[in-house]
Amino acid sequence: MSSFEKTFKKTPQNSVARIPKRGVYDKQEVYDILDAALICTVSFVVDGQPFAIPTIHARHDDKLLLHGSSKSRLMMHAAEGHDLCVSVTHLDGLVLARSSFHHSMNYRSAVVFGKGQLVEAESEKNDALAMFTDKLVPGRWDDARKPTSQELKATLVVSIPIDSASAKVRTGGPVDDDEDYALDVWAGVVPIQQTFLPAEADDKLSDGIAIPEYLREYIDNNS
Amino acid sequence: MSSFEKTFKKTPQNSVARIPKRGVYDKQEVYDILDAALICTVSFVVDGQPFAIPTIHARHDDKLLLHGSSKSRLMMHAAEGHDLCVSVTHLDGLVLARSSFHHSMNYRSAVVFGKGQLVEAESEKNDALAMFTDKLVPGRWDDARKPTSQELKATLVVSIPIDSASAKVRTGGPVDDDEDYALDVWAGVVPIQQTFLPAEADDKLSDGIAIPEYLREYIDNNS
Repeated sequence: MSSFEKTFKKTPQNSVARIPKRGVYDKQEVYDILDAALICTVSFVVDGQPFAIPTIHARHDDKLLLHGSSKSRLMMHAAEGHDLCVSVTHLDGLVLARSSFHHSMNYRSAVVFGKGQLVEAESEKNDALAMFTDKLVPGRWDDARKPTSQELKATLVVSIPIDSASAKVRTGGPVDDDEDYALDVWAGVVPIQQTFLPAEADDKLSDGIAIPEYLREYIDNNS
Repeated sequence: MSSFEKTFKKTPQNSVARIPKRGVYDKQEVYDILDAALICTVSFVVDGQPFAIPTIHARHDDKLLLHGSSKSRLMMHAAEGHDLCVSVTHLDGLVLARSSFHHSMNYRSAVVFGKGQLVEAESEKNDALAMFTDKLVPGRWDDARKPTSQELKATLVVSIPIDSASAKVRTGGPVDDDEDYALDVWAGVVPIQQTFLPAEADDKLSDGIAIPEYLREYIDNNS
């Protein structure tokens, strides 16, 4: 797809079939959901059998980046250009209705379809690793020791041009059948969030090294 | 596999290839990771293309249960007995090493392989829905209005006998190369947890219905 398009074209592949009103095809909304996730699940097919492996992802414009050891089966498979389906899910709440039938969850999920391409140029691999490191903790790349040329060789980076994608989002409270509102059952939402706890310094940390400001801020913003 | 076995047999399908020491084949450990997850991702193959959809799961002995609308493509596909791969991931921490290369995450992930079987008997479907409801919030089933026979008809329940499964777990602090411990870079772990926030009552909740004790306790235990 062209990077000038603002929405993903609805096709049988990416269409949200169940409860279509929860489907999201706006590119920026889909990307926001992808970017907010620290990990994704990569699904792929070997000999007709589905496999799924969790890993970290980063996005660069209309490309999703994966990385891993040059010995990783997932990365080798991804680098070979097979079809991939990358999904992320944020669980935002338990939705408790009066009837068991209408119980649900609030969530933001996104799914991306595409084929991987091996990133070979050392400078591009280095740029990708900067993105992964700064995705883990914004500002980390400038602080940590940069990869050596040997480390870059031991790392596979795969770029997946996003052919197609969509998201599915549920928000808000329970929706019960009219006659159930009279029931004497508590109903509502239990919001869920992913929370960072205070940082734990490595046992082997040399004396006098304080938690850097970018990290303290990142933890504060996610606590 | 026999339910008397205490470990999953290692096969090419379920073996943890990268960093084998992180592989877990003990049945109870794998099941604990599955059970602790509120949602899973179901991966499946249609016309050679991988798809992945998040949904809620429950486990009954050596079977994983899924449910959904009788109109759901995922559920219809699962009911047809195709190969499925169900995965869950708990993100437990950001692992910050001195070198960019050794950055990592702490996590517990599990993956299950099997084929779905449609659950047809109304009583069995009802039992499965009790499991899903009590998995969302333990104790909820007895409180909420039970499904009607019509609601049971509108719901597909699929049981997946677990053919094979494994888990992968990383815990602990960063592991740097010997020469990097002298670097002036903060290293350690930022623990992550999934946290429940205070319950939000439905706008349409009738006056005088307090949050039930089982829910208050569940929220307290996850706050």
